[in-house]
Amino acid sequence: MGIGPGALEHMTPKARQEIESAQVIIGYKTYLKLIQSIIKRDVEVVSGDMGQEVERARTAVAKALENKRVAVISSGDPGVYGMAGVVLEVAEREKANIPIEIVPGVTSATAAASKLGAPLVGDFAIISLSDLLTPWHQIEKRLEAAAEADFVIILYNPQSPGRKEPLAKAYQILLKYRSPNTPVGIVKKVGRAGEQAVITTLKEMLAYEVDMVTTIIVGNSTTRIVNQRMVTPRGYDLFR
Amino acid sequence: MGIGPGALEHMTPKARQEIESAQVIIGYKTYLKLIQSIIKRDVEVVSGDMGQEVERARTAVAKALENKRVAVISSGDPGVYGMAGVVLEVAEREKANIPIEIVPGVTSATAAASKLGAPLVGDFAIISLSDLLTPWHQIEKRLEAAAEADFVIILYNPQSPGRKEPLAKAYQILLKYRSPNTPVGIVKKVGRAGEQAVITTLKEMLAYEVDMVTTIIVGNSTTRIVNQRMVTPRGYDLFR
Repeated sequence: MGIGPGALEHMTPKARQEIESAQVIIGYKTYLKLIQSIIKRDVEVVSGDMGQEVERARTAVAKALENKRVAVISSGDPGVYGMAGVVLEVAEREKANIPIEIVPGVTSATAAASKLGAPLVGDFAIISLSDLLTPWHQIEKRLEAAAEADFVIILYNPQSPGRKEPLAKAYQILLKYRSPNTPVGIVKKVGRAGEQAVITTLKEMLAYEVDMVTTIIVGNSTTRIVNQRMVTPRGYDLFR
Repeated sequence: MGIGPGALEHMTPKARQEIESAQVIIGYKTYLKLIQSIIKRDVEVVSGDMGQEVERARTAVAKALENKRVAVISSGDPGVYGMAGVVLEVAEREKANIPIEIVPGVTSATAAASKLGAPLVGDFAIISLSDLLTPWHQIEKRLEAAAEADFVIILYNPQSPGRKEPLAKAYQILLKYRSPNTPVGIVKKVGRAGEQAVITTLKEMLAYEVDMVTTIIVGNSTTRIVNQRMVTPRGYDLFR
């Protein structure tokens, strides 16, 4: 299930109820910390590291085959770069005949957008800059296509200590199609302690510190600043 | 605020609390019906029709200027084809110095995805087929770009009684770049009474009844059927 961006006030009642009625809770350790206050004492908690998604899915399937009620945790929505797919795939591969329900959550794209204003009100594209699981030429092709077709673009996983090149390359691609003055929103730790949101321009984008828990929203040709917030107009005629 | 796809179990506590503490609740009448059970008796309710978004935003700003606590309702997330942008724009235009908070919700793209499996686990693009507010050539350009760059594509507002052409045109564009056997998910009334989810193929897509409250998710070249569900693999190596 998706726990939303972090704070319990953004977790749906459905997700909370599933966590509270689970016998086994499985998740990346950082996400488990976010929901620690609602995990009951007698529950089995399986905490894992980044990069161990397949192992977590296997544990989840194995526990479910023991007839246990299992909750696999993703931050945001489990279907957006989350655990939903790998759990379904592992269950298929292991021919495990278990019921699997996907519980949606508030995804970080829209949570981040809400802190900036309304940058996503028109068509948008979400692109992860992590080339661990997707070849870079594919990411580059998507950046080019989305930039050229004037989508608002959300960049996930923009950067990590050992991986600074993708964001610099994305910057160059975006500048080919967008004005340097295009509004860009940078949101760190959305919905968690230490949350930060800044609005800058495409030109200045690289001047900000960015990490894996940062979401970057790049406006399109119509995105503008409205009372210090970032808004992509939907096209309504406000003057009628 | 975003009330999520419909059922109260998918509305965040934050959105619910804001609705419960509002003095004025403003929304499209269909959405107000979804939350009727949590609207208190002494609250002023302003119900509007589709197409009257600017009027609703003006009413909201006017009521807030009377020092009333106002909740403007969008289904899903208010920042995804919702009311967030137009409220910010109207407040700017009317030089209204009022605090405006955007409360995110579970957006229909991920709610629909959760009913189908995990079709959005990789990069995706959301495109509205409504040409009321966006010129058709722009929509067409986005469809071409997203299809060619192998994004999973979510089609919003695919069709209404008087508007059948856009979906037929989108179908032709998608077939230029994707196999006719590409999995396609069609979800109607997600999270509401009468919810329906079917998985078909791109080739058969037009054989299904589709309306304004239908979300269509078109897989990319890697999307496959996993135990009758639609999954876009994230790229994990399941065989290691």
